[in-house]
Amino acid sequence: MEIPVIRNVLEANSKIAGSLRTLFAHHGILALNLISSPGAGKTSLLERTLSALKSEFRMAVIEGDLQTDNDARRVAATGAQAVQINTEGGCHLDAAMIRSALAHFHLAELDILFIENVGNLVCPVEFDCGEDDKIALLSVTEGDDKPEKYPLLFNLASVLMLNKVDLLPYVDFDLARATHFATRLNRSLAVFEVSCRTGQGLNAWYDWLRARCAAKRAQ
Amino acid sequence: MEIPVIRNVLEANSKIAGSLRTLFAHHGILALNLISSPGAGKTSLLERTLSALKSEFRMAVIEGDLQTDNDARRVAATGAQAVQINTEGGCHLDAAMIRSALAHFHLAELDILFIENVGNLVCPVEFDCGEDDKIALLSVTEGDDKPEKYPLLFNLASVLMLNKVDLLPYVDFDLARATHFATRLNRSLAVFEVSCRTGQGLNAWYDWLRARCAAKRAQ
Repeated sequence: MEIPVIRNVLEANSKIAGSLRTLFAHHGILALNLISSPGAGKTSLLERTLSALKSEFRMAVIEGDLQTDNDARRVAATGAQAVQINTEGGCHLDAAMIRSALAHFHLAELDILFIENVGNLVCPVEFDCGEDDKIALLSVTEGDDKPEKYPLLFNLASVLMLNKVDLLPYVDFDLARATHFATRLNRSLAVFEVSCRTGQGLNAWYDWLRARCAAKRAQ
Repeated sequence: MEIPVIRNVLEANSKIAGSLRTLFAHHGILALNLISSPGAGKTSLLERTLSALKSEFRMAVIEGDLQTDNDARRVAATGAQAVQINTEGGCHLDAAMIRSALAHFHLAELDILFIENVGNLVCPVEFDCGEDDKIALLSVTEGDDKPEKYPLLFNLASVLMLNKVDLLPYVDFDLARATHFATRLNRSLAVFEVSCRTGQGLNAWYDWLRARCAAKRAQ
């Protein structure tokens, strides 16, 4: 009953996402879609990244939340441009929402656009927002079985950030198991073990961003 | 564009949920719908509860996951009856899925039915499964801002389990702040601070279950 409806919505979304992708390519913008459960550390990762790389790249953030503009205010405190989308119950961002938000930025003056999706491991994965890469976050407090149980995200992501590794001594999380499942789903997945709280491991992520931006410009 | 479609789906779901609620009332079954982010501890809570109360109540579990029957096998190891629903990408359980799963149980021989929803703080809240109560879980590793950012669940739940309190010394989580936001949304919310890993605080939850079962039978 529900399936044909969802298919139509997804087709309409894909068309808009395609036009966004063309727009990003025209301006040489690297667009990244951050997806995770609630509380896995997407905003903390952005705060760290925006602060660390602000002298190298011109960056902006589109924040997606059901309610509140807390996250947009957090990332704007780093000096980055930020737009908040409140979905008011909607479980994901879609391409039309991103298109509306883009009106608030000068695209010609942008190197990286971060899209922080609604905290949800399921629905955001289905809705293409025109991004170059999906960035999956999984915190070690969520359990090492998540790549096996939510395979689509890990299948489609370019990067997996295993966050909160500072908590590893206090939880039952097998890094090797999580990485094994995730990379079995996706052999080209780049996996970074990090703590956005302490900063541990983030240099490798920054290097990935630098390389990806250079490749995008060379296209 | 999307809104009228979602409304039709929700209306159809509500009708089936209403018939399930009548069925549960007829058999004196307390039906509880467990909702949380992935990895907040729903299955661990069930393992603890099924083991602790097995001499007092006849209990069964419907497990919802995108993929795998890991969780059904975990709860079945306690001796409880369990049925696994694989949504294969679907972000929530709905009433029609619950109706199908019920065919596997003898309803006349059941006191409590636990429904473990797909790990997701958004979509499962919208789909009534005929339950008496929604049980929200929030682990302290997810951040104390979640009741404010995902208000609908905390608004509709009867119980909030603040789980993983054994990790409080290692994370920045303000129990008072989370409880304040949640109970401001919902003044009748029962809040339990627990650790499903160590067992801390679970006796208050068991007492809530006993009282709720007694009230249900008296109806």
